[in-house]
Amino acid sequence: MTNKIKHIAVLTSGGDSPGMNAAIRAVSRACAFHEIKCTGVYRGYQGLIEGDFKELGPRTVKNLINRGGTFLKSARSKAFMTREGRNQAFEHLKNNSIDALVVIGGDGTFKGAEVFGNEFQFPIVGVPGTIDNDIRGTDHTIGYDTALNTVVEAIDKIRDTANSHNRLFLVEVMGRNAGDIALNAGIGAGAEEILIPEENLGKERLLESLKRSRKSGKTSSIIVVAEGDQIGKNIFELADYIDTNLDSYEVKVTVLGHIQRGGSPSCYDRVLASRLGIGAVDALINQHKAVMVGIAHKKIVNVPFEQALAGSNDIDTDLLRVADITSI
Amino acid sequence: MTNKIKHIAVLTSGGDSPGMNAAIRAVSRACAFHEIKCTGVYRGYQGLIEGDFKELGPRTVKNLINRGGTFLKSARSKAFMTREGRNQAFEHLKNNSIDALVVIGGDGTFKGAEVFGNEFQFPIVGVPGTIDNDIRGTDHTIGYDTALNTVVEAIDKIRDTANSHNRLFLVEVMGRNAGDIALNAGIGAGAEEILIPEENLGKERLLESLKRSRKSGKTSSIIVVAEGDQIGKNIFELADYIDTNLDSYEVKVTVLGHIQRGGSPSCYDRVLASRLGIGAVDALINQHKAVMVGIAHKKIVNVPFEQALAGSNDIDTDLLRVADITSI
Amino acid sequence: MTNKIKHIAVLTSGGDSPGMNAAIRAVSRACAFHEIKCTGVYRGYQGLIEGDFKELGPRTVKNLINRGGTFLKSARSKAFMTREGRNQAFEHLKNNSIDALVVIGGDGTFKGAEVFGNEFQFPIVGVPGTIDNDIRGTDHTIGYDTALNTVVEAIDKIRDTANSHNRLFLVEVMGRNAGDIALNAGIGAGAEEILIPEENLGKERLLESLKRSRKSGKTSSIIVVAEGDQIGKNIFELADYIDTNLDSYEVKVTVLGHIQRGGSPSCYDRVLASRLGIGAVDALINQHKAVMVGIAHKKIVNVPFEQALAGSNDIDTDLLRVADITSI
Amino acid sequence: MTNKIKHIAVLTSGGDSPGMNAAIRAVSRACAFHEIKCTGVYRGYQGLIEGDFKELGPRTVKNLINRGGTFLKSARSKAFMTREGRNQAFEHLKNNSIDALVVIGGDGTFKGAEVFGNEFQFPIVGVPGTIDNDIRGTDHTIGYDTALNTVVEAIDKIRDTANSHNRLFLVEVMGRNAGDIALNAGIGAGAEEILIPEENLGKERLLESLKRSRKSGKTSSIIVVAEGDQIGKNIFELADYIDTNLDSYEVKVTVLGHIQRGGSPSCYDRVLASRLGIGAVDALINQHKAVMVGIAHKKIVNVPFEQALAGSNDIDTDLLRVADITSI
Repeated sequence: MTNKIKHIAVLTSGGDSPGMNAAIRAVSRACAFHEIKCTGVYRGYQGLIEGDFKELGPRTVKNLINRGGTFLKSARSKAFMTREGRNQAFEHLKNNSIDALVVIGGDGTFKGAEVFGNEFQFPIVGVPGTIDNDIRGTDHTIGYDTALNTVVEAIDKIRDTANSHNRLFLVEVMGRNAGDIALNAGIGAGAEEILIPEENLGKERLLESLKRSRKSGKTSSIIVVAEGDQIGKNIFELADYIDTNLDSYEVKVTVLGHIQRGGSPSCYDRVLASRLGIGAVDALINQHKAVMVGIAHKKIVNVPFEQALAGSNDIDTDLLRVADITSI
Repeated sequence: MTNKIKHIAVLTSGGDSPGMNAAIRAVSRACAFHEIKCTGVYRGYQGLIEGDFKELGPRTVKNLINRGGTFLKSARSKAFMTREGRNQAFEHLKNNSIDALVVIGGDGTFKGAEVFGNEFQFPIVGVPGTIDNDIRGTDHTIGYDTALNTVVEAIDKIRDTANSHNRLFLVEVMGRNAGDIALNAGIGAGAEEILIPEENLGKERLLESLKRSRKSGKTSSIIVVAEGDQIGKNIFELADYIDTNLDSYEVKVTVLGHIQRGGSPSCYDRVLASRLGIGAVDALINQHKAVMVGIAHKKIVNVPFEQALAGSNDIDTDLLRVADITSI
Repeated sequence: MTNKIKHIAVLTSGGDSPGMNAAIRAVSRACAFHEIKCTGVYRGYQGLIEGDFKELGPRTVKNLINRGGTFLKSARSKAFMTREGRNQAFEHLKNNSIDALVVIGGDGTFKGAEVFGNEFQFPIVGVPGTIDNDIRGTDHTIGYDTALNTVVEAIDKIRDTANSHNRLFLVEVMGRNAGDIALNAGIGAGAEEILIPEENLGKERLLESLKRSRKSGKTSSIIVVAEGDQIGKNIFELADYIDTNLDSYEVKVTVLGHIQRGGSPSCYDRVLASRLGIGAVDALINQHKAVMVGIAHKKIVNVPFEQALAGSNDIDTDLLRVADITSI
Repeated sequence: MTNKIKHIAVLTSGGDSPGMNAAIRAVSRACAFHEIKCTGVYRGYQGLIEGDFKELGPRTVKNLINRGGTFLKSARSKAFMTREGRNQAFEHLKNNSIDALVVIGGDGTFKGAEVFGNEFQFPIVGVPGTIDNDIRGTDHTIGYDTALNTVVEAIDKIRDTANSHNRLFLVEVMGRNAGDIALNAGIGAGAEEILIPEENLGKERLLESLKRSRKSGKTSSIIVVAEGDQIGKNIFELADYIDTNLDSYEVKVTVLGHIQRGGSPSCYDRVLASRLGIGAVDALINQHKAVMVGIAHKKIVNVPFEQALAGSNDIDTDLLRVADITSI
C-alpha cells in the first residue's frame, strides 16, 4: 500500500541563486496540477524549526519566474544541526500534516536533508540550486548559467577599459572548490589566462605565458581567477607579483563578488528550474525519498543524495584545451 | 598517404546568429595553434565566387567574441546554385592554395556545402550557426541560447505593461518550422499558452483555455506564438478572433522580429562557438569531409551532412508538459 | 487658516511607464516622512469610482523602485468622463477622509484631474509619467529616458543583423504626436534617417538621401520612424516604396511596439520619479492645487495644469542638425 | 582676417568613459560635414608626442557609437608634463598641418590642454568625458549617465541576495572627490544610507540610523559608499565596525571597481557625446580657443578652461533630502 502524497512543503536553503523563485513557482504549480496542497517555508531549515509557513497557491507565485533571489528567503541554521532543532522541525511538519519536503539548495542543503530524512523517515527530494555547478549527477545547477552571463557581461565592461589603456586585469570570480565558472566564463570573456583550483599553473609559468602573449602583439589582457585558486596567497598578492615582474602592463584587480548571485535568471535557468521543480513533485508522487532531481543529457533524473554529495563534477579537460587555443 | 591541411578558409552564410564571430575567431586561432594559414571569405558563398578574401591572423579576430552578427558578413548567393558559380568558387580556392573550408550557418549553408564538396571532392566542415536550433545531430546551434534570452527579456518588458493594464498579449517569435524558441522562451517567460508549428491546438480550445485561466484569477496573459504556427492565418487574425470572442481582456500583438538575431552572445553561445570552431579545424586535420561538428551530451561530435540535414530535432514532449503545468 | 493635509491618495492612470512604481514609492514615503496617511488607488480613476483602495505604508512599497509597470495598475475609465462617475469618486474620497490626490500619468490623466479638481474643489497634484515626453513645463517625463535606452538597445541588435547582410531596416518607435523618442533614439542608435511627425521630409527626398549615402560607402542603414510620421500611409507602405525604388538594399521592417513601455527604469528615471513623488507631496502640503510637478533646469517646479496641457514641447531644432551631421 | 580651420586632430586622454567613441565619431563626421580634414591621435598626449596619427574619414568611425572605451586609446603621459615633450607634440601638429585640437577627457586632460594651448598659441577645445561628473560648467559629462545605470544594475543584483538573506551590504562606487555617482545611484538603487565625501555623517550616527531602520521593519539594507568618503579608514574597516556594533545583520562588502568605466553608452550619453563632438568643431570654426564645450539647460555652451577647472559642481542639497525621505 502506498501513501499518497497530499501536502508538500518547499524551502530554499544556503546561498541563493537566480532561478530559485522559478523552482518554487514550479513546485507550487505542479502541486496545484496534481491537487496536492503546497506550503512554503521561510528562511530554510530555520523556518522549518520555527514553523514559519505560508500556503502557496498557483496565484501566490505569479510574476516570480523572472526574479532573482528567493522570496521564501534563505538562511543558515545552526539549530538544524542539533537533534533538538530537527525534532522541532519534524513536529511542525507533522502538526501541519505535511507529507513530504522539497529542498532547493546546494550540498549543505542536501546533507541536512539526508540526515533529517533518515532520522524521521521523512520523504525529501532535493533540487540543485547554486551558482557553483558543483553537484554530481546533474549536468547543471539552477543559477549557474545566469552567473556565467553575469560574469561575462561584467568582464566585457572591464575589457572596454583594459583595451583603452593597455592594461592587465585580474578578475576574481566565485568558485571556492570548483573552477567551472572561471573556466567557462573565462573562455566566454576571451580571457588570456584562467586560474582554477583544479590546476596550479605556478607563478613562473603564468609570467612566461604573459610575456609570450605580450610579444605576440596583445596590448591588453584579462586573467580570470577562481576564488579557490592556489597560485598566490590571494589575488592582490598575485597582482603585485605580476606588477613587479612584468614591465609592460599596468596591473589592476577586480573582485566581482555578490553581483554573481543575483539578477534575473537566464531563459535556460528558468526552464531548468521549471523542469526540476515539476520533477521534484513527480519524484515524491512516485514514492522517491532522499534523492535529488537533476538533468542529464536533457532528461530529468533522480540521483540518490549520497551520490550527489560525492563531490564536484570533474573539470572538463576539453575546455582547458579550448581555453589554451582561443587565447593564443 | 594523407594530405596535410595547410590552408583553411572560413565563411558565414545564411541568416546571421549571435556567436558567429566567436566561431570565426576560434577557427582562426585554432589554425594559428596548428600552424595552418587561415583566410576569411566575405559574404558567404557569394564572396567565394568573387574571391573576396582576407587573411585572418590571431590578432585580426581580437575583440570579436562579444559581438553579435558576423564581421565576415553573410549573404544568400543565387550564383552558387549554378554549376558555373561553383566552378568560379573552386577556381578561387585553388588559386589561393586553400585546402579546406569551414562553413558556418544553417541547413541551407550545409546543403550548398554538400553539393560543392561532392562536385570538387573538396573537404568542407560545417558549424551550426542559426538561432532556430533546427539542425539534427547537435543539441544546440550557435545563437539559439542568446535568442532565447533576448525573447525572454523582451517578454519580461511586455509583461510589465500587461500586468499594469490587465491585457492579453500575443507575442510572435521566430521559428518557421521549429517551435523550439517558442516553447523554451514561452516557458521561460511564464507564458499562458505557447503555439508551435508541431502542434495545432485549434482556436476553440485556445479560447476555452483562456476562459478557464481568467476564471482561475489571472488578470493578464502572454501567449507566445511561433511564426510557423498554423492556428490562424496570422497572428493579427488570431488576435481579432480572441478579441471578438473573449470579453475580459484587451488584446494586443507584438512581433519581435529581427531583434532576435542580434545582440552580444550569451556565455553559453560563446563557449559553444569556441568549441565548435576548434572542432571544425580538428575535423579537417583528421581528414573528415562533408561533416558538421555538433555538440551532443557536452561532447564534440562529427555528423555527416546528410544526417544533419534530415530535418529538425523532434519537439521535446516533456517540455509540452512543463508548459502545461507551469501555466496552470 | 490653512487646511493641513492629513491623508493623501495616489493613483496611476493612462499608459504605464517605467518609474511609475518609483514615484508611488516616493509619494508613500514622503507621506510617512510628513506623518500623512497614504492610500493607494488601484486601476486609476476607475478604482477611484469603485473605491478600490489600499493603505500604503513605507514598507508596503519596498523593492518596487526597480520594477517596470505600476503595481497599482492603470486603466482607462469611461465612467470618470461622466458627472455621475466623478460624483462616486468624490464620495469614496470623502468617506475615506482623503484630503488630496496625487495622479501619475500623461495629458489624459491631467485633463481628468483638472475637471475633477474644479468640480469638487479638490486638491490634486499631477506627476508626469509617460514615455512620450510630451508634457509642457517639464524637461522630462518619467519613463522617457528608459524608453530611449530600450529603443537604442533594440536597434543595436538590429544593427548586428543589418551590418551582416547589407540591409536597410525601417524601425518604428512610439510617438504619435511627438518625435522626441525617434529623434533622440535615432541619434543614439546612429540612424541614417529619422522620420518624425514634426517634419515631413517627403518620400522623394528620403530616397535621394538614401542613394547619396549608399554612394558614400554605407553598406547598411537604419531608418527610425516615429508612429505619427506622415511620410507614407504606414511603415509597410513606405518600405515597399523604398524597395521598389532603390536597388541596392534588401528592405526590412521592425515595429518595436510595447517593449518600449516596460523594463526596469534607468537610474535617471528612478531619481526623477523619487524627486517628483516627493515634490507632489510638498506641493500639496504647500496648498497647491491643480498643478503638475515637473523638472526644469534640474529644479522641481510647479506647473498649472492648463499650462502643462498646452501641447508638446517643441522639437529641439539643434537635434535635427545633430542628426544630419552624425549620419553623414 | 580669420584663419580658416582646415585640419583638426582629436584625442582621448585620462580615464576612459562610455561615449568617448561616440564623441570621436561626432568630431570626425562634423569635420566631414564642414569639409575639414580630421586626424585621430592614439594614446592621448603620448601619441601626440610620438606622432601616432590616423586619418579619420566618416566611414572610419562607423559602428562605434555603441561601443564602450575609446578606440583611439588613452594613456597618461609623463613626457607631456615636460616642455620638451610638448615641443615634440607641437612639431608633429605643425608637420601634419593640423590647425586645431579637440581633447576628450577630464580635468587632467584640460589642464594639459590649457598649458599647451598657451605655450604655442594653439587652438584647443575640450570635451568633458569622464564618469565622475566633476567638471564645472557642464550639467553632465560623457559617461556619467551610463555609469549610474551600471551601478544601479549591479546593486539590483546585490539586492536580490541581500533580500534573500537579511543582509547588510556596503557597496563602494567610484568618486574620489565627488559624491555625484554615490548620491544619484544610491537614490536610484534604493539605498538605505549614502556616504559621500562632501558630508561626513560620522560612524555613530550611521549606526543609530541603521538601528532605527531595523526597528522600522527593514530586513535587509544596502549602503552606498563613495570611494572618497571619510567615515572610516576604508570600506572594510567600516564594515567591521558595523558588524561589531550591530547584531541583527550579517555585513558584506562589494567594491564595484572598473566595471563602472565600461559598457555600451546609454542613449543619453550617446546623444550628449554627439552634440558635444559637433559643438567642439563648431567652437573651433568660430575661432574659440581654450574652451570646453558643455551642456547647460539642454543648450551647448563654451566654458573657458579656467572656469571648467574651478572644481566640482556642488552637491545638490535637494538630493540629500530625497535620499533621506525615500530611505525612510
